[in-house]
Amino acid sequence: MLKFFFAPHTCALASHIALEEAGADYQPVRVDFSKNEQRGADYLKINPKGRVPALASDRGILTETPAILLYIAQTHPKARLAPLEDAFELARLQAFTAYLCSTVHVAHAHRMRGTRWADDPAAIEEMKRKVPQTVSDCFALMEAEMFKGPFVMGETFTIADPYLFTLATWLEGDGVDPARFPKILAHRTRMSERPAVAKVLAAHG
Amino acid sequence: MLKFFFAPHTCALASHIALEEAGADYQPVRVDFSKNEQRGADYLKINPKGRVPALASDRGILTETPAILLYIAQTHPKARLAPLEDAFELARLQAFTAYLCSTVHVAHAHRMRGTRWADDPAAIEEMKRKVPQTVSDCFALMEAEMFKGPFVMGETFTIADPYLFTLATWLEGDGVDPARFPKILAHRTRMSERPAVAKVLAAHG
Repeated sequence: MLKFFFAPHTCALASHIALEEAGADYQPVRVDFSKNEQRGADYLKINPKGRVPALASDRGILTETPAILLYIAQTHPKARLAPLEDAFELARLQAFTAYLCSTVHVAHAHRMRGTRWADDPAAIEEMKRKVPQTVSDCFALMEAEMFKGPFVMGETFTIADPYLFTLATWLEGDGVDPARFPKILAHRTRMSERPAVAKVLAAHG
Repeated sequence: MLKFFFAPHTCALASHIALEEAGADYQPVRVDFSKNEQRGADYLKINPKGRVPALASDRGILTETPAILLYIAQTHPKARLAPLEDAFELARLQAFTAYLCSTVHVAHAHRMRGTRWADDPAAIEEMKRKVPQTVSDCFALMEAEMFKGPFVMGETFTIADPYLFTLATWLEGDGVDPARFPKILAHRTRMSERPAVAKVLAAHG
C-alpha cells in the first residue's frame, strides 16, 4: 500500500486530494512540523529534502507535487485525472502544474520561508512586503490567460484542480483578496464542496 | 513544424538540446532580451508570461521547461528520452525536473532577478549574497542523493540530462566551484561533448 507523508498548511494538500479523487489505497502519515519532524533523521531517510509531500510505494519514494500528481493519475487511469492519451493536452496540464510549483508557490514562500533566500531580517521583511503583489500578479495571469473553467483545463477535472485549489486557499494569508479573481474564487468554492476535498481538509484540520 | 522560442543564457537551453537529441523538425526563433523583446506585444501573444522557452505547435503554444521536455520525449518516442512505459520511473524523472525548476533555478534566479521578490536595493543585494550558499546546497543534495550516474537517472540519457547540464553551466557565475560536485562536473563535461549539445551551444553563443 502507498504511504503518503503530509503536513497541514503545505502543498501536500494537493496530492492528498488527488489520492482521494483517484480512489487510491493509501495510508496517510502526518509529519509534525511543530516538532520539526521533517528535519529529523527518520524523515530525512524518507525525503532528504526535509519537505512534504512524499509518497512511498513498494518501488521507492517519490517527491515533488507535479511528479506525485502525474504518478497518481497514471497509476489510477480509471479516475481519468489527466489526458494521458494526448501528449499536447498533457503538456498543457504539465505547464500549469510547473507554473504553480516554480512561480506561484515560490512567490507565496517569500512570506513564511524568506530565510531560504536571505539572512538579514530587513531583507526578509522586504520580501514579505512584496508577497501580496507577486502572488496577486500570478493569480491575475492564471485568471486571465490560463484558467479555462469550470475546471483548470476546461470541462474535465484533472490533477491541476487540487493543486490550484491548494494555492488558492493561501490567498487571504498572503494579503490578497480572492474576489479579484472571480473564476478562480468560484473554482475554490466548488472544489471545497467535493466530498474528497472535504474529507482531506478534515484530516489536515 | 515546431517553432522554438529561446534566448541565450536562459533555461531554454535545456529544451533546445532535447529537440536536437530527439531529432525534432523545428525552427529556432531567438528572442532578443537586450531589446526586451520578451516583454513586447508580439511575444506576449506567444507567451503572456514574457519568458522563454516557448514551443509553438500546430495545436498551440507550450511553456515551462518540464512540460516542454516531456512533450518532446512523448512525441519522439524513438529517441527514448524518458521511461514512458514505466509510471514510477517517469515520476522519478519528473521529480528531478520539478526540483530543478522549483528549487535550483529559483535559487539561481535570486542573483539576477531579485526584483521579482523585492524592490529595496539592500534586500536585492542580500539575496545576491546568499546565492552561492543556496545554489551550492542544491547541487550538494543532487550530487549526494539524486544524481545516479553516468546520467541523471542512471545508465540512460533522458530529458533530465540537458536540464541539469543547463543549470550546471551557471555554477561559476553563481559563485560556486563546480569541483565540489565531481559527479555533476564530469556529467557537464561529457554533456558538452555531445554533438547535439555543441550544435545548440553554438546557436546560443
